[in-house]
Amino acid sequence: MSQPDAQPVSLPVRRPRADRARQVADVLRHQIYDGAYDRGLPAESDLAAEFFVSRNTIREALAVLKNEGLIERGTKVGTHVAVRKFDHGLDALVGLKETFKDYGEVRNEVRAVQRLAAPPAVARKLALEPGAQVVFVERLRYLGDLPLSLDLTYLAPDIGEAVIAFSLETNDVFALIERVSGQRLGGATFALEAVSADPHSAATLQVPNGSALLMAERLTSLDDGRPVDLEYIRMRGDRITMRGNLFRSDT
Amino acid sequence: MSQPDAQPVSLPVRRPRADRARQVADVLRHQIYDGAYDRGLPAESDLAAEFFVSRNTIREALAVLKNEGLIERGTKVGTHVAVRKFDHGLDALVGLKETFKDYGEVRNEVRAVQRLAAPPAVARKLALEPGAQVVFVERLRYLGDLPLSLDLTYLAPDIGEAVIAFSLETNDVFALIERVSGQRLGGATFALEAVSADPHSAATLQVPNGSALLMAERLTSLDDGRPVDLEYIRMRGDRITMRGNLFRSDT
Repeated sequence: MSQPDAQPVSLPVRRPRADRARQVADVLRHQIYDGAYDRGLPAESDLAAEFFVSRNTIREALAVLKNEGLIERGTKVGTHVAVRKFDHGLDALVGLKETFKDYGEVRNEVRAVQRLAAPPAVARKLALEPGAQVVFVERLRYLGDLPLSLDLTYLAPDIGEAVIAFSLETNDVFALIERVSGQRLGGATFALEAVSADPHSAATLQVPNGSALLMAERLTSLDDGRPVDLEYIRMRGDRITMRGNLFRSDT
Repeated sequence: MSQPDAQPVSLPVRRPRADRARQVADVLRHQIYDGAYDRGLPAESDLAAEFFVSRNTIREALAVLKNEGLIERGTKVGTHVAVRKFDHGLDALVGLKETFKDYGEVRNEVRAVQRLAAPPAVARKLALEPGAQVVFVERLRYLGDLPLSLDLTYLAPDIGEAVIAFSLETNDVFALIERVSGQRLGGATFALEAVSADPHSAATLQVPNGSALLMAERLTSLDDGRPVDLEYIRMRGDRITMRGNLFRSDT
């Protein structure tokens, strides 16, 4: 790391309005999540005063959030929060039903329950032979009247057969796995990314074509270390925020 | 939890092709990330055999991944991986430059360095009085020739003044904070979501309008617990995968 040197002096004193609008939108977004505006957003002039910017900048910031589907604007009714976002923890391994038990009932529409031959990549992750039979379950998960996520689940054969004997409409798969295995879940590895919804997934999740989705691949193991549950989860970007904590590791 | 009861027998034996295509696309996606196809994807017929599905289903699965910008297809050149994705860990608090040190140089285009009055929501998170002066830094971060993320950073005034005396083009802000504070970083809270890129952010990050972005809010504290660094980070969805581990908590 070099010694201090002066910052370049060529940086523009006045930034483009779109840059300032994004700056405001990012802070506003989290005030909305925190419930600060559940009864409607303040007038543009009040927001302008709060953020030390012009009304035009506020208007452009609100346009960004409207474009994401987060707020609705009407000339007579003002600006309102369009969709409530729910927090999903990234610090512990918890099913959706457990996660949202304080918000309402998670209901699952079971779209598929099948025994199928595992493609090599699926077999490898579940520590099975290629082509081994696995149990595949597809569920569209609702919180309230709206879909929250579309979950594609591959289960190890012995666990899967036992799990699908129970109702998948109202139970978390995690809870069922613990029940049928007689073991606690151990841990999971996950990969998380943002993808655009293809037309069919968009229609299923009831969002506009191309909407941003949070996509997770999650491989969950039993307490003894055996991987038993491989899931591909598409979450509606406008309904879920993943929250967690990070700590500085020793380097 | 109720006793076992039979699954509904009305589930369709043959699922719509779009459902089967998504199922294949999800698994293929991670094989691509894992580098299985760095020299090009196998022929449709080979993939069909591997996934136990028809060529039409494979073709539709590849269309999903092409639509996301993950692969490119040409009649003569076959199917190739379009953009390399990079893994960002969600298990420890690490800057981008540290994270990607094995992949290449992270270069920052510094778009703004400003002292500004903190809006109330920003002041609250940094444990300052509303309107207190903070240091704002905006950086477009590159790995190789392509942007990776656009980072908007609010720093506590004393830390910020010391940090901006150093080059922000080549250093991680985390490393600079530790240097100027004489403390290790402690931890951070973060919120992660998927949002569609507004036109201005899309142009800045060099992605199509409306592309899916991974958006993070991250508040980082010093080892003594004082919050000093509030960031809003837009990551290109096609370039970054967040990876981590989860453990079952005692309930």
